[in-house]
Order: sequence, then structure tokens, then C-alpha cells
Amino acid sequence: MATMKDVAELAGVSTATVSHVVNGTKKISPETTERVLMAIAQVKYTPNTVAKSLRSGQTNTIGVLVEDIRGLPVPEIVSGIEETLSKSGYRMILYDLHLLEKLYNQYEQIGAYRTRINNGVNLLLSSNVDGIIYVGMHDRHLDYLFDPMERPLVFAYSHGTSQDTYITYSNFDSAAVLTRHLIAKGHERIAVIAGHPHSYPTTKRMSGYQMAMQEARLPIWDGYICYGDWEYESGLIRTRELLALDKPPTAIFAMNDLMAAGCYHALGEAGLSIPKDMAVVGFDNREIARYLQPPLTTVALPTSDIGVRAAIHIMDIISNPSVKPTREIIPCSIIERCSV
Amino acid sequence: MATMKDVAELAGVSTATVSHVVNGTKKISPETTERVLMAIAQVKYTPNTVAKSLRSGQTNTIGVLVEDIRGLPVPEIVSGIEETLSKSGYRMILYDLHLLEKLYNQYEQIGAYRTRINNGVNLLLSSNVDGIIYVGMHDRHLDYLFDPMERPLVFAYSHGTSQDTYITYSNFDSAAVLTRHLIAKGHERIAVIAGHPHSYPTTKRMSGYQMAMQEARLPIWDGYICYGDWEYESGLIRTRELLALDKPPTAIFAMNDLMAAGCYHALGEAGLSIPKDMAVVGFDNREIARYLQPPLTTVALPTSDIGVRAAIHIMDIISNPSVKPTREIIPCSIIERCSV
Repeated sequence: MATMKDVAELAGVSTATVSHVVNGTKKISPETTERVLMAIAQVKYTPNTVAKSLRSGQTNTIGVLVEDIRGLPVPEIVSGIEETLSKSGYRMILYDLHLLEKLYNQYEQIGAYRTRINNGVNLLLSSNVDGIIYVGMHDRHLDYLFDPMERPLVFAYSHGTSQDTYITYSNFDSAAVLTRHLIAKGHERIAVIAGHPHSYPTTKRMSGYQMAMQEARLPIWDGYICYGDWEYESGLIRTRELLALDKPPTAIFAMNDLMAAGCYHALGEAGLSIPKDMAVVGFDNREIARYLQPPLTTVALPTSDIGVRAAIHIMDIISNPSVKPTREIIPCSIIERCSV
Repeated sequence: MATMKDVAELAGVSTATVSHVVNGTKKISPETTERVLMAIAQVKYTPNTVAKSLRSGQTNTIGVLVEDIRGLPVPEIVSGIEETLSKSGYRMILYDLHLLEKLYNQYEQIGAYRTRINNGVNLLLSSNVDGIIYVGMHDRHLDYLFDPMERPLVFAYSHGTSQDTYITYSNFDSAAVLTRHLIAKGHERIAVIAGHPHSYPTTKRMSGYQMAMQEARLPIWDGYICYGDWEYESGLIRTRELLALDKPPTAIFAMNDLMAAGCYHALGEAGLSIPKDMAVVGFDNREIARYLQPPLTTVALPTSDIGVRAAIHIMDIISNPSVKPTREIIPCSIIERCSV
């Protein structure tokens, strides 16, 4: 049976370094980590994590509770979490709430799944995870959903209270930046096709759009604000209505790429060309944004970074439980293509 | 501290049933499982899994090694695995090889990452997983990549040898069914835009296409077989070439949806309408297939079922190590839309 000393000798490092790599107790450079991992593989060293965790009281395991691994932003967030945890010697247990079909696009109804969420938390706690990261499919407030627990909890792609640590992006800023982009390109008549009226991203993005219009002293004409349901079909129908206005817009900000794709469809029907007759922007940078004709200018969400930062925060809280709760808002970036 | 007895009383079941739910030692109905989980949550029972696994020698933990959680079929496969494992009281530890950018679409070069794969296996083994499921991003043979190990290994969305258990779909059958679909709709001049020439799915799908053409006694004219690289641009370029042939086809089978989208682009350029002037079919049922104009007829892969079956097989092998290796090929389904 290989020992930690065998690993250390082969990797040319101290046993303390091997221990840090295995237990994530200290940051070790990627090169050294790689060398230690290769040595572990070569000598077939299997640290007895079960016995060890009985001694330390920690398992170096993080529970990751996802609303649904198939939800749009989730795989990239989980990828960022996993990469960061595993570099520090943490494992992740993935627990999936399987809410994709259940919530569909009625994301605000997450409250109906409070029991399911807390069951997931309890199962993860019963696996003795050192902490839990909750990954949302949609940005919104979730703090009221969780029963009190004694292990650290970090929210990713969602909001907690000021007592919680959460990492997400700014709907308000992104929408403002995108609207200013249209204004900078010479547009003054800018309409918006929003998502569900009561959804958190809709209201925040709407405020960002309104602020950008206001600071440029541009009027928002009657009929320029309309609401869809985040789906293709609603982008199609709302665009037909916008085109029928007495004073149609010259640019449309669709609050997601699917509605923007529907908007393209309506413009094609009406024989209008993008961007000559109408500029269109979306939000999300889904795969289709690249393949629409012309390729769509949109907003990319910092999904991978949200995962990375969530992992760093949970490890910080575990190693120093008195660390203050943090709210981290990561900027989005505009992906300029050919639709403006 | 709540005990298993408290849980049993609240749920109105025996402690044996609670134990089966917690340990996955026997199948319990979904209703009872739900009741037990709610009782666990209410009395805040946390079975000491660490101490327990020292006694039983099993951890009820499966390691899931994914090539990349962001890869097209991977989230749905992982979702099927997780749902099936958690119903049986197993946890999953996710370990990600982060190969999406590294492999890009050169999937056959997985051999270069042998060390990385075996390091992942060793890290999972050091977490005392009871078995490992390997999830590929692309269907191909992988058995030669793994160092011998003493715990069960199941391949999902990839192939092993006859000594391995693996679950995947049939490239050959799917391509044959799709080609027969075009033939049944009256097409006789059917061209194919393949993926990388040496890729496993390309060669198998090509054989399926050729067999379907042969059984219908249809000739494959010069230039009707051409190769792309799985990307949009190559679908565009190859379609331009097909249109320039003396005897152009009336239908194009693009071996994935991205190349089919490029094909749409070339047909639009040439002023041809789909499906009137040219039928087009794709493969994968990516999100864009629904949103192309007209929506694309394509093949949906049984990703979720592959995950479910992989989870069932690994649990079978763990509970009965002498069970014979199984090769399970799950049929794909044609999603008929408007492009034929």
C-alpha cells in the first residue's frame, strides 16, 4: 500500500504539500498540484478519506444543489464550481432538484418547491458536506426558501439577504449598457420586448432600459414597452404589433435571445432587413444567437465566473466561519455581432 | 439528536424502510420515499454516513466522470444518472475532465488525455466511490484508455470492449432510418454532408446511409458524399459545392444540426426554398433545430435514457459483482418538422 511519503518522493515535494493538495488545506500552484496528482496516480495512493474525515470532522466535500443541470446557465456554473473546488482538493456531490419541466419558464414559482429544496439540503447534510452551493436557473431572490442550517450556504445565480453570501450578475447594468449601445449607434426610437412582467430579471432589465433612455433624454413612445413570456412565439407576435404602430421603432431590445429569434421571424415576414431597417439585440448569448442570420448582438452572462467565485466563497467561509457575508455582482459583456 | 426511530414514527413506516431509503438497499415506492424524506427533514435526522460507511465498506456513492459537463449531450445524461441514483439512495460525486475547449470537435484525440482521465479515476477512487460512470461527449471507443481498476466502471455515450458494460445509441441505425425517411418521401438523389472522415459517428452514420440507399437500389452519384468538420461553415461550403454539381441532389442529409444550419444558409443564398426545392435533415436535435426557418427534421438522441440505464447498470454490478457485462444500444427517434 502506497503512502503519502511515496507520493511526495515521486513528485519531489514535501509530504505537507501532498497533504495540502489532497485536503485542500492550502493553495498550491497548478503545476505542483498536477505533479502531485500524477504521482498519486502512479503509485496508486488512495488516502483513506473516510477514516480521515472522522478525525478532522471535515469531509472536504461540497454539496451542489442545482435547480436543474439542464437549465441554460447551469452546466457552465457547475463547471466553474467543480474546476475551482477540485483544484483545492474538494469533491462535489451534485444533487439535482429536476425542476426544468416543472418550473418551465415560470421561474418565480420556485416557492412551491420549498419542501423539495429542503429535502435536498437535508440529504446533502446527511452526506456530511462541509457546505452547500445553491445554483439557480434564473436570477431571483431565494433566501426565504431555506430552513435555518448550521453549515455554510452560498447562492449562485440568485439572491439572498444581506446576511447571505451570493454571487450573480447585474440585470440592471446589463440592460442599461445594451440600451446605451443602441443609442450610441444612433437609435432614438428603441422598443423593448420584456419577459414575464413580474419576473425579477424583467423588472430590473426594464429599469436599466428606462434609465438609459432617460439619461439620453429620449422619449419612450406609446406601445414601445411590451411583454412576452421569454419564448420565440411571443417575440414574433410582439414584433408584429410594434411594426403596426403609427411610429414604429428603429431598434428592438428583446430581453432574451429566443424572443429576439421570434423578432427576426416577424421582420423577415414583413420584408424588413436587419440591421438596415431594424436593429435587434437579445440577451443570454445562447447558441442560436451565433447562427441567426445576421448573427445577433446580445449579452453574455458571466456563468463560469459565477461558479468560480461561489466555490471560492464557500471555501473561505468553511476555513473562516466568521468571515462577513458577501454580495458579489459580476459584470456581463456585450457580444457585438451584426444585428445593430 | 433525532434517531432513525423518530423518522420511522413520523413517517408511519418501519425503521427498516427508513434504512432502505437512506441506504438504497432496497427499492421503496416513490410515495413512501417522499414521506420518509419529509420526516427526515422535519426531525432533522442526519444519519452518520461517515461512521456507517466504515462499518459497511460501501459508501453508496457513485463517481461520475464527465468529459465536460458543458458538452452537448452531457447535462441530460447526468440528469438521468442523478435522478436514478438518488431515488435509490445513492449520492453522486461529479468529476469533470474539462475537455470541451481542449478536444473542441477533434473528439478522437481523447487518447492524449489518458493521464488526466486516470487521475480523475484515482481521485474518485480515493473518495471511496462504489463504482464509476464515465460520460463521453461523443460516441466512440474508450476502453483502451483506462488503467485496470478494482471497482465497477460503466461507459455512457461511449463504447467499451465486450468485457465492459456500456450504454449508447446506434449511429448506424439512426442514419439508416433517417435516409429511409427521405426515400419514403420520394427522394432518390440524396447527398450527405459528413463530419470528420475518421470519426466513429461519421463512419457508422455513413454505413447506415449507404445501406439504406443500397436496399432501395438508389445510386449515390459522384460528389454526393462530402465531408465537413461538424461546424456551420463547413455545411455552408459543402452545400454550395453540391448545388454546383451537374446533377444536384434533391435532399441533403447533414450529419449534425450545425452543418444543416450552414446548409440552410447556402440554400437561402441560392434563392432555393426548403423543402420545396431541397429537403434537409440534421442530427442531434440541438436547440437551433427548432428555431431554424423552416424548423429542421432531425434525430433526437436518447440522452436521458442513457443516463438512467447507466445508473441502473452500475447499481446492479455493485450489488451483484458476478453479473455479466452488458452492451445496451438505445434507439434514437426522428423528430419530424418541416424541412422534408
